[in-house]
Amino acid sequence: MKQLDLMKELKVSSPNSIIMLVMDGLGGLPGEAGLTELETARTPNLDALAKGSMLGLSTPIAPGITPGSGPGHLGLFGYDPLEFPIGRGVLEALGIGLTLTPTCVAARGNFCSLDPMSGVITDRRAGRIATEKCAELVKKLSVIRIEGINITIEAVKDYRFALIFDAPDLSDKLTESDPQRVGAKPLPVEALAPEAKVTAAHFNEWLKKAFEILKGEHPANGCTLRGIAKDPGLPSYADIYGLKACAIATYPMYKGLARLVGMDVLDAGDTIATEVETLKANWDRYDFFFFHVKKTDSAGEDGNFDAKVKVIEETDAVIPEILGLNPDVLLITGDHSTPSAMKAHSWHELPVLLFSKRYLRKDGVTSFGETACIQGGLGHIRHADLMPLAMAHADKLTKYGA
Amino acid sequence: MKQLDLMKELKVSSPNSIIMLVMDGLGGLPGEAGLTELETARTPNLDALAKGSMLGLSTPIAPGITPGSGPGHLGLFGYDPLEFPIGRGVLEALGIGLTLTPTCVAARGNFCSLDPMSGVITDRRAGRIATEKCAELVKKLSVIRIEGINITIEAVKDYRFALIFDAPDLSDKLTESDPQRVGAKPLPVEALAPEAKVTAAHFNEWLKKAFEILKGEHPANGCTLRGIAKDPGLPSYADIYGLKACAIATYPMYKGLARLVGMDVLDAGDTIATEVETLKANWDRYDFFFFHVKKTDSAGEDGNFDAKVKVIEETDAVIPEILGLNPDVLLITGDHSTPSAMKAHSWHELPVLLFSKRYLRKDGVTSFGETACIQGGLGHIRHADLMPLAMAHADKLTKYGA
Repeated sequence: MKQLDLMKELKVSSPNSIIMLVMDGLGGLPGEAGLTELETARTPNLDALAKGSMLGLSTPIAPGITPGSGPGHLGLFGYDPLEFPIGRGVLEALGIGLTLTPTCVAARGNFCSLDPMSGVITDRRAGRIATEKCAELVKKLSVIRIEGINITIEAVKDYRFALIFDAPDLSDKLTESDPQRVGAKPLPVEALAPEAKVTAAHFNEWLKKAFEILKGEHPANGCTLRGIAKDPGLPSYADIYGLKACAIATYPMYKGLARLVGMDVLDAGDTIATEVETLKANWDRYDFFFFHVKKTDSAGEDGNFDAKVKVIEETDAVIPEILGLNPDVLLITGDHSTPSAMKAHSWHELPVLLFSKRYLRKDGVTSFGETACIQGGLGHIRHADLMPLAMAHADKLTKYGA
Repeated sequence: MKQLDLMKELKVSSPNSIIMLVMDGLGGLPGEAGLTELETARTPNLDALAKGSMLGLSTPIAPGITPGSGPGHLGLFGYDPLEFPIGRGVLEALGIGLTLTPTCVAARGNFCSLDPMSGVITDRRAGRIATEKCAELVKKLSVIRIEGINITIEAVKDYRFALIFDAPDLSDKLTESDPQRVGAKPLPVEALAPEAKVTAAHFNEWLKKAFEILKGEHPANGCTLRGIAKDPGLPSYADIYGLKACAIATYPMYKGLARLVGMDVLDAGDTIATEVETLKANWDRYDFFFFHVKKTDSAGEDGNFDAKVKVIEETDAVIPEILGLNPDVLLITGDHSTPSAMKAHSWHELPVLLFSKRYLRKDGVTSFGETACIQGGLGHIRHADLMPLAMAHADKLTKYGA
């Protein structure tokens, strides 16, 4: 039996509350002093909490696999990211706060440069045009109409845009138009199943009109479509876990991911402080809180070790307020590692802290850091194991078999 | 390839012997002094053994999942408990020592209270009637005859009884008659497949006659049937491992579980001492010994920390006698945790000790306890990994691939 089916079968209700505090990109690598960002940060509250918690290290997907934000969070939410892929188009739309209904098909668009004579791609990112230029081009493309289709197009960042077709009976069983290399022409979108033929024709019609409009532009005189996909229709948190779950996040992408699994998305402002206020104000309304801190990841992506340390310290400072709510279970980890030294997501395991009012053994670990967690009582686990553990510690799972 | 197929393919014979010593419900949680039951117990023999063994922690099914006795033992025996579910009716029958042949279908029966006017259930457990009362009602129901069916009915405990139908061509693809809530009428047993229609009719005929007999009783004027199931027909220990295996246990449930995988069940008396005598008397007749200590679990279920400590100490005291037999491999663990603090089975990992005369590395762990085992050389493993490890250390597995 698969894990989600097992959760569905064994879930029971209890009045207990779970907080999952996700510091995006938390995991790091040693800096000059030999300590990671988390180990460098002064975190008296997390260290005190560690003494009464179980620690461990968690792999988002599988050893060596670096996750994007989508799969990283799906793992945390208990869904096997390899079983439930989320199309790039869906993530791009969620990332700028667009909402997808079941009739929507979303694509990620890339502006690119084409050789005017041969039509082959000379730059897949059109020289990474500025976001303002992208918005200007998107405005021009927004005049495109296709019979029977409700079209949404929005600039994302640099050379990227999101394109959504909404109509009954659209299919996402489609190939991409990006040949993934320079020197080749953009490809037509092709149907991978008979029911997708009409949708493929619609996308090709849109591309033809777009090329016509972009013809005179420089350097972005073409575009490609990638990851054409529908909302994957994930089983919901309520169905699987019986939880009334909400998301407290400041960035559209994470709100969107939470919406995919049926969480309510709360208006949480722009800062950790406003997120904590939101948590407090809604404490009695939910029994699961996904609390997302974004800027650990942003600092890691910027290669700014000190800034990442600072965000971790800022998060540490609100731990007493969070504990003041008296949660039954508090899980603290990240979706993936973003070591400042790499300026990118990585495959490294995430330090995990599981605090529970009940049922904890002692593991003797006295601080929250990558090296300390190696000795933790949780051992090396997978992201997808965290929800079952949180559920068990919150009295929300019954026995399997007699 | 699945694990059992791999074992079948790689098994080779050797003269070496394996003892699997299972202290039921062994794993615990810290008591007032900060130590678990196992850590509190004075276990000089287990600690001495630990110094020359590999230690670790084992998950019965999956993180966060609390197993019943059936799945807990199946895991220890190397069968994935999620792949081989065992019906509640089968476990109930095994638990009181009934034997199931391949033509038997077993149900767990619950006496319940019905509203005499509307027929809806007012108490699913009939006020938890005493076992004596249960036996008296079971005797009344034992007069029920159904053409062509050999019927066995036995009281279990409180409001529970076991009902077995034996006849050729019975099917267990059946629903339960228990609506799982008060305020609803007992349901008819329904066939989940065409071949089960006749069996469903037999169970419904039996229920009709039972209701007629129970009509005037109080409070148990009705009953429901749950978990209607056949022996799952597990591949046998001999087939999978090539082992001549026996079970040394004092309680019917564990004898029954051992029978399900084809072990010989020895007459082992009622105490750890008589179990050790049985082990000695049969030492030359088998090469695998499942040695089950029940009362660690019973004490845990009673919430009696000190009693559980005492059973562990009693078990520790027979370790020298067991080692005196010179086993090649001695594996010591439990089927699941039963922390006294929880008075119930739990999901927590089990401490594991693997002693082998050969092939052991050193892990530096010098005592057998939950916290010490975190640092053990076996790491965090699953119950189903234990049999392959025991087989390997007993020279009973050949190389995979050239």
